[in-house]
Amino acid sequence: MNVPVSAKHAVTFLPSGRKIDIEHGQSLMQAARFAGIHINASCGGSGVCGKCRIIVESGEVPGGKSEKISQAEYDAGVRQACTSSIAGDVTVRVPEEAGLKKGGLSTEIPIRHRAGMYLFNINELQKKGIFVPPVEKVFLELPPPSQYEHMSDAGRIAQGLKEQYGERGLTISLSVLRKIRKVLRDDNFKVTVTLARPVRSKSKSFIMNVQSGNWVSRNYGLAFDIGTTSVYGQLIDINTGETLAEGGDYNGQISYGEDVISRIIHAETPEGLDLMQKKVTETINTILNKLMLETDIGRDEIHSITIAGNTTMSHLLLGLEPHNIRRAPYVPVTTFFPPIRATDFGLDLHRHAVALLYPSVSSYVGGDIIAGVMGSGMHNTDKLTLFIDIGTNAEIVIGSREWLVCAACSAGPAFEGGGITYGMRAAHGAIEDFSLNPDTLEPMNITIGNTLPVGICGSGLLIIVATLFENQIIDQSGKFRHDIENPRIREGRSGYEFVLARQEESGTDSDITINEVDIENFIRAKAAIYAGVKTLVEEVGLKITDLEQIILAGAFGSYIDIDSAVTVGLLPDIDPAKIIYVGNGSLMGARMSELSNHIRRDVVEVVRRMTSFELSEVNSFKDQYVASLFLPHTDISLFQSVKDRVSARE
Amino acid sequence: MNVPVSAKHAVTFLPSGRKIDIEHGQSLMQAARFAGIHINASCGGSGVCGKCRIIVESGEVPGGKSEKISQAEYDAGVRQACTSSIAGDVTVRVPEEAGLKKGGLSTEIPIRHRAGMYLFNINELQKKGIFVPPVEKVFLELPPPSQYEHMSDAGRIAQGLKEQYGERGLTISLSVLRKIRKVLRDDNFKVTVTLARPVRSKSKSFIMNVQSGNWVSRNYGLAFDIGTTSVYGQLIDINTGETLAEGGDYNGQISYGEDVISRIIHAETPEGLDLMQKKVTETINTILNKLMLETDIGRDEIHSITIAGNTTMSHLLLGLEPHNIRRAPYVPVTTFFPPIRATDFGLDLHRHAVALLYPSVSSYVGGDIIAGVMGSGMHNTDKLTLFIDIGTNAEIVIGSREWLVCAACSAGPAFEGGGITYGMRAAHGAIEDFSLNPDTLEPMNITIGNTLPVGICGSGLLIIVATLFENQIIDQSGKFRHDIENPRIREGRSGYEFVLARQEESGTDSDITINEVDIENFIRAKAAIYAGVKTLVEEVGLKITDLEQIILAGAFGSYIDIDSAVTVGLLPDIDPAKIIYVGNGSLMGARMSELSNHIRRDVVEVVRRMTSFELSEVNSFKDQYVASLFLPHTDISLFQSVKDRVSARE
Repeated sequence: MNVPVSAKHAVTFLPSGRKIDIEHGQSLMQAARFAGIHINASCGGSGVCGKCRIIVESGEVPGGKSEKISQAEYDAGVRQACTSSIAGDVTVRVPEEAGLKKGGLSTEIPIRHRAGMYLFNINELQKKGIFVPPVEKVFLELPPPSQYEHMSDAGRIAQGLKEQYGERGLTISLSVLRKIRKVLRDDNFKVTVTLARPVRSKSKSFIMNVQSGNWVSRNYGLAFDIGTTSVYGQLIDINTGETLAEGGDYNGQISYGEDVISRIIHAETPEGLDLMQKKVTETINTILNKLMLETDIGRDEIHSITIAGNTTMSHLLLGLEPHNIRRAPYVPVTTFFPPIRATDFGLDLHRHAVALLYPSVSSYVGGDIIAGVMGSGMHNTDKLTLFIDIGTNAEIVIGSREWLVCAACSAGPAFEGGGITYGMRAAHGAIEDFSLNPDTLEPMNITIGNTLPVGICGSGLLIIVATLFENQIIDQSGKFRHDIENPRIREGRSGYEFVLARQEESGTDSDITINEVDIENFIRAKAAIYAGVKTLVEEVGLKITDLEQIILAGAFGSYIDIDSAVTVGLLPDIDPAKIIYVGNGSLMGARMSELSNHIRRDVVEVVRRMTSFELSEVNSFKDQYVASLFLPHTDISLFQSVKDRVSARE
Repeated sequence: MNVPVSAKHAVTFLPSGRKIDIEHGQSLMQAARFAGIHINASCGGSGVCGKCRIIVESGEVPGGKSEKISQAEYDAGVRQACTSSIAGDVTVRVPEEAGLKKGGLSTEIPIRHRAGMYLFNINELQKKGIFVPPVEKVFLELPPPSQYEHMSDAGRIAQGLKEQYGERGLTISLSVLRKIRKVLRDDNFKVTVTLARPVRSKSKSFIMNVQSGNWVSRNYGLAFDIGTTSVYGQLIDINTGETLAEGGDYNGQISYGEDVISRIIHAETPEGLDLMQKKVTETINTILNKLMLETDIGRDEIHSITIAGNTTMSHLLLGLEPHNIRRAPYVPVTTFFPPIRATDFGLDLHRHAVALLYPSVSSYVGGDIIAGVMGSGMHNTDKLTLFIDIGTNAEIVIGSREWLVCAACSAGPAFEGGGITYGMRAAHGAIEDFSLNPDTLEPMNITIGNTLPVGICGSGLLIIVATLFENQIIDQSGKFRHDIENPRIREGRSGYEFVLARQEESGTDSDITINEVDIENFIRAKAAIYAGVKTLVEEVGLKITDLEQIILAGAFGSYIDIDSAVTVGLLPDIDPAKIIYVGNGSLMGARMSELSNHIRRDVVEVVRRMTSFELSEVNSFKDQYVASLFLPHTDISLFQSVKDRVSARE
C-alpha cells in the first residue's frame, strides 16, 4: 500500500517553548493538543466560544478569524486556535487568558498516546513462508488430441497439471465440465486453470475454473468483516496481496435493532430469519459490486471470499437459526462453517466462488475475534498476550503460541454512549478528546468534525473520566470532591456533575455535562472488562502483571488514549509501547485467509485448542468485578504508573 | 427377492417318448420347442395356419380349438399345439402331418440353450465383506447442553458420532446446518444422522441429513441404467440390499433419433443440448416418482442415486457437450464424473441427494459397460473372461483380475433389425425363435406375443441363420444351395430367399422371407464382433481359445440361443456352461454401487488400468474381419463344436 507521507511543519508554543512537528492543514488547537498545551475550548473547536485565542509571533497562519477578533488584533497575529490552520513553520504564543494561573503558562497536560499501529505487510507473510494463497491460477499449453492419444478433455487438463505442476488427485465441478470442451479449443489447448488448493496436504486440489488463454495475472479475492453495526470489504489481488479497493456500509439489519440480541429476537419472528439474511447479503452485495466497479474486475475473476463476523452475524448471514445464542446455556448451531458456494446464500458472485467463514469459539466469542487473533499473529507469538476488542461486549483472548483462553464480558453500552446522560456514538459533534486547565478547570473539548459538541462518545468519555480523576476532581470511587469551588462543578439531578459545555457553547439546547451516575456506569463497564481479563489470567494460574503485550482491535481501540485507559483501570498497567492496535482485526484476518492457506489450516487448530470461559460461571469473577469498581482499582499496587501520575499532580 | 416358483407339469411327446417338465400355462408348442420336437407352425403360434395339430393321449389340455378342428376331432383329443395350454401332466402324440418323413417322428431339433443367468445375491456381497453402503444412517442419543457444557449443535453431533461410532473429521452441508437446531430439540436430542461414507479411508464422512428420532431403518437409494433406447430404474433398500420396486420407460430423447450419433447431432443445434438433457431427466423423474409412489417412500428418504450409461448418454444427462464424441479422434469431455448434487442437473430428488455416474473408459466404452464389469465381478475373477454387450455397437472387455482391455466395435444395426428386409425390433409379432423340419423344411416360427409374424428380431435372425446353416440350406459364405427343391426356397429380388411365413400366415400383406443380402448383412455384423474379440485377445498375446468364460450383458444377450451364436461364429466356441448372462449389467452395476463403497473405490482403479483399443487403428483387425465373413469362420478349426454339429446332420 502506498501511504502518502504528508508534509509536516514545526510549531513552537510560547512561553513554554515546546515544539512539535505536525501535519500540514491541522488546526493550531490540534497542534496544541499534541504538544500537551492546554487551550480553553468549550465549543468543541467550532470557533464559537472564542476562548482559544493565541498570537502568532512568526510565520504565516491562515484562517482563525472570528467576530470576537478585531481586524487590528488579527493583523497583530491574534487567531482562534481552533479555526486556524497550519501551512508552514510557525511560532505562537498562548496568552494569559487561555493558559493562566497555577503552574503558569507552561502547564503541561498529558500528551495523548494512541496505541502503536500494526500494519499488515505482505513481505512479512512471504518471509514467514505462509504466502500460499488458497486459490491459484496456472497456465497450461496442452498437446491437442491425436489419432493415437485421445484422452478426454478433463483428463488432458489433469495430465497437464500433473506433468507441469505436480498436481495429483483433482476434483472438478459440473459447471466447469460443462464448458471445458469449448474453452480448450478456443485457443488451441492453451488454458488457464484456477485451482483451489486443499488446506490439508493429503486432500485434493479442486478445479474451480478453466479459461482460454493466459489469465494467470488476474486472480482476485474478497475479504469481509460483518459487524453488527457496519460491514467492511476489501478486494484483493491474490497474486500480490495488494488491496485494490475497500469500502463499507452500515449493516442493512441495523433498522431491526442495534445489538445482536434484538437481531436474534427479530430472526425468531416468522420470515424474520430470511429477512435478516437478506438484509446483510444486500449490504455485502452493494459493497462488493462497488469494489468491482471501481477496479474494473469481472465477477468471474473472483473465486474466493473470506468472511469474519461474530457468531450471531455468521448465523444470520447463512440463515442458521440463532435462537439458542441468546438463551442459556447459549448454544450456537455451529462454530465451524464448511466452505460454501457463495451463491448458495445469496452473494452476488459467480457460481464458482467459494465462501469461507471464520470459525467461532462460542456464542459470544466469534469469528471476528478469531480473525483478529489470526491476523495479528497472536497464535504464533511467544509473548503472553492480551487480545481485546472493546464494544458492548468486550471479547478477550489471552495466551500465546502455547495456549489460548477466551471469554466475552458484557461491558454494557457505556463505550458506545449508552447509559450516559449525554452519551452518543462516535458521530459528528461527539466530544472525542478532552483536556482541562488544571487551575481554572476550563475544558478543551475536541469534537468529531470540529463542530459544537452535542454529546460524548466512548473515547471522549474515557479521557474525560481519566482527566477528572488525574486532576482529583473525582475520587477513586468516581465521586466528585465537594471541596472544589468552580462554576463548572455543580449538583444536578444525578448527583454532582461537571459542565463540559454550557448551552451557548453546545450544539444542543442544554448544557452538556457528565455526572456521577454516568461515571458509575462507566466504571461498571471498565470494571467488567478488567475483571474479565484478570479472572482469565488467574484461571490459568498466572498474574495480570505477567502480561507482556496487549493487542487492541475494533473501532474503539483506535481512538482511545492508552494512558487514560490505564488511568481508569480499563487496561492493565503495561508499558504503552507494548500496546498494539490492529485496527479492524476481523477484516485483517479475513484478508490473511485470502492470502494464506496456512492461516486456513491453523485456524482450525487454534479454535480447537482455545478454551472458552463463561465468566458468569467462574466463582472469582464476581469478586474481581467488585474489586475493579474503583479508579483504577481497589488494589492500587496493580497500577503503579497511575499512582505515580496522580501523586505527581498533587 | 422372493421369486415364486411356478408349478410344473410333465409333458410326454409320442412317438419319440421325449418328456419334459414345463411351467403351468405354457402352450404345447412352447413345450415341444423346449423338448426339441419340431412342430410345423408358420403362423408364429397365432392359431391361424392350423399346421400344429397334435393329439392328446392322456391328461387334460384346455384350449387348442380351431375352425380347422371339428368337434369330433376335438373330442378325440386333437388340439392346435400353439393355442392349447398346459394345466396338468399330459401325454401327446405328434401326428405324421406335423412331424413327418426323414428321421421319422422322433426327429430331433436342437434344444435351445440360453446362457446361465447370473443372479445378484446380497449374501455374496456380505460374504465378500464388500456390503459397505456409501450411505449409512446412525442413531444418536445425545446429552442436552447444560450450564457446564454448551457445545454447538453441530459440535454435539460430531462428538456423538465420534464417541458412539468412531467417526472423525466430518463435513456438513449448509442445508443441514440450517435445520439441526430444531431437529435436535424436537425429540430431546435423539437424532438419526445420515452419513455419506468416504470412498477412501483417509477422507471425511459427510453429514447428508439429520432427522429427529430413529429412522435408521428407512435408508433408500436409486440405481439407474440410461440406455440410448430405454431407461430402467430400481429403488433399493440400502440396509438390506433388496430391490423394492423397479421400472423402465423409453428414453425421452428417442424421438430425436435412435442412435447416439443422431442424439449428438441434435445436441449440437441451438438449445439442442438443453433439450436432450431435459428429455432424459424427465424420463428418469417419471420413473423415480413412480417407484417412490409404489413403495410409499418419501423423497427425503433417498440420499443417493447411481447412474450408468454410455458415454454419450452420460454427457447428455449432465449437459456436457458431446460434440467431439462423434468426431475423430473421438474425445469425450470427461470419463470420470464427480459426485454431483442430483438437483443440480434436474433430478426430482431432495437437495441432499447425491448422484454418482459410472465412469467411462472412452467415447465408445461407457459407464454402462464398466457397471457391467463391476456388477459381474469380472474385475475380481481369475478366469480369462470375455465380457460382451451386443447392440448396434458391441462393447467388448477382455481380461481378469490382473489386467483388462476393451474396445467397441460397430456391428451395425442388424441385431436390432436394421438392414434386414423383414428385420424389426424385438416387439409384438417379431419371430424370436425358430426351428425347421429337416425333411419338409417347414418352419416353426415362434413370435413375441404368439401372434402372426410381422418380421424378424435379432434373436430370431440369429437362430434362423444358424438353423439354415446347420441344415446346409445355406453354405459357409451364407449363400443358398441351388440344388434344394422346396417351395420355401426361391429366387427373389435380392438373390435366393427362404419363405418363413407366406402372406396368409403372416401379419403383413406379403410373405416374410430372409434373403442372401439379409444374411450377408448379418454375417458382416457378427464378423465385426468376432474379429473385435479375436483382435483384442491377440493384441495382448493370447489366443481366442484361451478364453475361459463369457459374460453376456444387455437385452440381446438374454434372448439368444448360445449354440446358434457359436454356430454362426458370433461367439467364440466355448463350453455353453461357461457362458453367463448378467441381464442388464449396467443396472446391476449401478445397484452394486449403491450397496458397496468398495465398488465405488475399485471402479476408479479398474477404469485407470483398463486399456482401450481403437480397433480401426489396429492393423490386424481388418484381416480378422475378412476372415470372419464366413459361417462360422474361415478357420473352421476355431469352431470344433460347429464342425461336429454340422457334420452330424450330414
